[in-house]
Amino acid sequence: MEKRKKFMLAESEIPTQWYNIVAEMKNKPQPMINPQTKEPLKPEDLFPLFAEELARQEMNDKDVWIDIPEEVREKYKTYRPTPLVRAYGLEKALDTPAHIYFKNESVSPVGSHKLNSALPQAYYNKIDGTTNITTETGAGQWGTALAYATKAFGLELAVYMVKISYEQKPYRRSLMQTWGAQVIPSPSMSTKAGRKIITENPTYQGSLGTAISEAIELAMQTPNCKYALGSVLNHVSLHQTVIGLEAEKQMEMAGEYPDIVIGCFGGGSNFSGISFPFLRHKIKDGKKTRFIAAEPSSCPKLTRGKFQYDHGDETGYTPLIPMYTLGHTFAPANIHAGGLRYHGAGSIVSQLLKDDLLEAVDIKQLDSFKAGVLFARTEGIVPAPESSHAIAATINEALKAKEEDVQKTILFNLSGHGFLDMSAYDQYFAGDLTNHELSEEELNKSLNKAH
Amino acid sequence: MEKRKKFMLAESEIPTQWYNIVAEMKNKPQPMINPQTKEPLKPEDLFPLFAEELARQEMNDKDVWIDIPEEVREKYKTYRPTPLVRAYGLEKALDTPAHIYFKNESVSPVGSHKLNSALPQAYYNKIDGTTNITTETGAGQWGTALAYATKAFGLELAVYMVKISYEQKPYRRSLMQTWGAQVIPSPSMSTKAGRKIITENPTYQGSLGTAISEAIELAMQTPNCKYALGSVLNHVSLHQTVIGLEAEKQMEMAGEYPDIVIGCFGGGSNFSGISFPFLRHKIKDGKKTRFIAAEPSSCPKLTRGKFQYDHGDETGYTPLIPMYTLGHTFAPANIHAGGLRYHGAGSIVSQLLKDDLLEAVDIKQLDSFKAGVLFARTEGIVPAPESSHAIAATINEALKAKEEDVQKTILFNLSGHGFLDMSAYDQYFAGDLTNHELSEEELNKSLNKAH
Repeated sequence: MEKRKKFMLAESEIPTQWYNIVAEMKNKPQPMINPQTKEPLKPEDLFPLFAEELARQEMNDKDVWIDIPEEVREKYKTYRPTPLVRAYGLEKALDTPAHIYFKNESVSPVGSHKLNSALPQAYYNKIDGTTNITTETGAGQWGTALAYATKAFGLELAVYMVKISYEQKPYRRSLMQTWGAQVIPSPSMSTKAGRKIITENPTYQGSLGTAISEAIELAMQTPNCKYALGSVLNHVSLHQTVIGLEAEKQMEMAGEYPDIVIGCFGGGSNFSGISFPFLRHKIKDGKKTRFIAAEPSSCPKLTRGKFQYDHGDETGYTPLIPMYTLGHTFAPANIHAGGLRYHGAGSIVSQLLKDDLLEAVDIKQLDSFKAGVLFARTEGIVPAPESSHAIAATINEALKAKEEDVQKTILFNLSGHGFLDMSAYDQYFAGDLTNHELSEEELNKSLNKAH
Repeated sequence: MEKRKKFMLAESEIPTQWYNIVAEMKNKPQPMINPQTKEPLKPEDLFPLFAEELARQEMNDKDVWIDIPEEVREKYKTYRPTPLVRAYGLEKALDTPAHIYFKNESVSPVGSHKLNSALPQAYYNKIDGTTNITTETGAGQWGTALAYATKAFGLELAVYMVKISYEQKPYRRSLMQTWGAQVIPSPSMSTKAGRKIITENPTYQGSLGTAISEAIELAMQTPNCKYALGSVLNHVSLHQTVIGLEAEKQMEMAGEYPDIVIGCFGGGSNFSGISFPFLRHKIKDGKKTRFIAAEPSSCPKLTRGKFQYDHGDETGYTPLIPMYTLGHTFAPANIHAGGLRYHGAGSIVSQLLKDDLLEAVDIKQLDSFKAGVLFARTEGIVPAPESSHAIAATINEALKAKEEDVQKTILFNLSGHGFLDMSAYDQYFAGDLTNHELSEEELNKSLNKAH
């Protein structure tokens, strides 16, 4: 029999429903809280900010399955189903008994998994009568995806792009502009939130927390304008479950079931997407699968943060979210994995971590690039610096399997490719990158300023 | 029934043989000629330059089908079969009765079709005992592919990259370096050919013809070193037929047969790849399909060149090839579609054009970008500037079908994505690009210097 490398599904097997893990969690996440009234948030409280159906999905703890609108599924066909790939090349290079699989979300036209949520978010806004959307973007993956999705559904988009990425990754900016979006480096002078930060710290290179504040502020002031977020929130994780739902069928085609599932971790969108459908079988059927979130050691909310209520943005415009956080004013180091530079973890993942249903590891920047280059040279795909964190964690587990001489099946999510991050690789080869270790002192200073 | 957008094949349907059109052509291409002896070339004459099996494939006019080595087919599985996509979005934007399909070769890990020939070329060199390879690259697509392929088979690579692209496309250079290749801007001081050109014209921005001279010169002087070419030659077209062979099966899945097949044209590799398997049915079964090569108006060898014997490189190191040419010293304008900046057309395509079995059209640079942006905004994939020439030609035919109110089925090859060409899009949006029309005077000057 022919040795297969890729496991492909037909278009008709694109999921027709998203999986809503909250409905099946024994310990549900605590509710988000309105910082003014101190009351638990209701969907209506979010209507000024988000399309109504998105606000309802955000709070939905009843329905296990939520229908994917046909218009969204039609757009998913541009790139879904994505391949599941057996990483024979990487296995051989590591000389490991582990079987390594990756779900290749980098094949989407925007180069990452972010489109899985950008498309439904644009769609629900469209049917609500929204004409303009604002958002933030770190490395540019989310902004690019939303630029594509708003173009697909005929909406206008303004993107606050974290300044360090705006400068480091001009090609992502161009890509957003090619799809017709307006891109503003953050912090900017165009919002109160931005002006305050620029004034206090003129050389500040920006963070996702700051960019979120700016995007929310602009949305609140603009008629027919809503805000969109690419990670952290429950409805985003919900949309991303198409990744794991497809992977489940594909692992079945491969005749295996993962012992370990790994995703890189920024706000949780790709990690949730690959994990939740498999976590279902841990919650319901007692499967022993381990779930590992790989975060950068310079932004370690899961491994070193505190579980508490905190804001999702720097200025404090968002509701209070119960989550692992480094404090909403945390200023992460300028690592190249811009998509992972976020202070909080979202309420679902935080609750699951608290309940020991998943694990977290931290990865140093240099180790992530070393892993990324090995992957490029053995599997041929240049990974996004974010995804390289998942690869590094995968390599660690595969080497452990070798040491212990056990055959483990590892599945990780390749959330995106690195074609637009080549300058980061240049700097890595030139020896210009460092690990940006976070000291206890810095950490405590930021945690003390958490809500 | 569900409306399908993509038509996918299983890995087991990756072709097991390449299609050698020469064996079935009524009028075979005239032989290449040794410029010293004036004798027709024999495979042995090419052994110093190419792996032996490649030299044999180059001259093979007997075998219709040539086996793909299992080792190569195994590597093809990384990205093949590639999708065939129905371009509903583009059709709608053009309001055309035409059905438009594209074969998406941009999904390869290097971002283009070039890997289809890079892998077998690296493989045949490996089994010959070659340790080092030299090559040239224009926009960087071929160099990137060969960097990947030589890494996959454990060979060292030096790439002469056309200077204008080296400067315009630094990300492609980084990509080659990520896969471990050495990259030198051409013209360089490292060869006689390069030194001569630099001395005569210090500001010369390079051409594929010059870079080929440099790569050949280095290969000839280095032990265990061979040269590799990414286009023009017969063995390259042979390898690229995997594109058309897959597309043939996929069009059958879609229940259609193309009335028109379109590819952009530089040296002919992707055009041959998508066309030859369908051309077979024109030659053998009398199918009426039209085949259109879309070349840039600034480098118009098929539409304005002369059919004659000429060198494949600037200095005159290569054998004489019977082909449409602009003269081997032709200095093309600095258009962004660097992969199309080549003076000649290869002997098979040239003979087929002479015999009216295919057509050529020229596309202006601004029209190519306009087409590329429309495609990005309707189909979501940002095309390489080269591929945008095929898209522009497709749009022209689709609009013609609308005018004539006939339903045509058009198939084009999306040879690569433009993620590494975003600076070109930036310049287009800024209004900084021009058409670079080629005057009669310039053309005649160059043609007079043809061999």
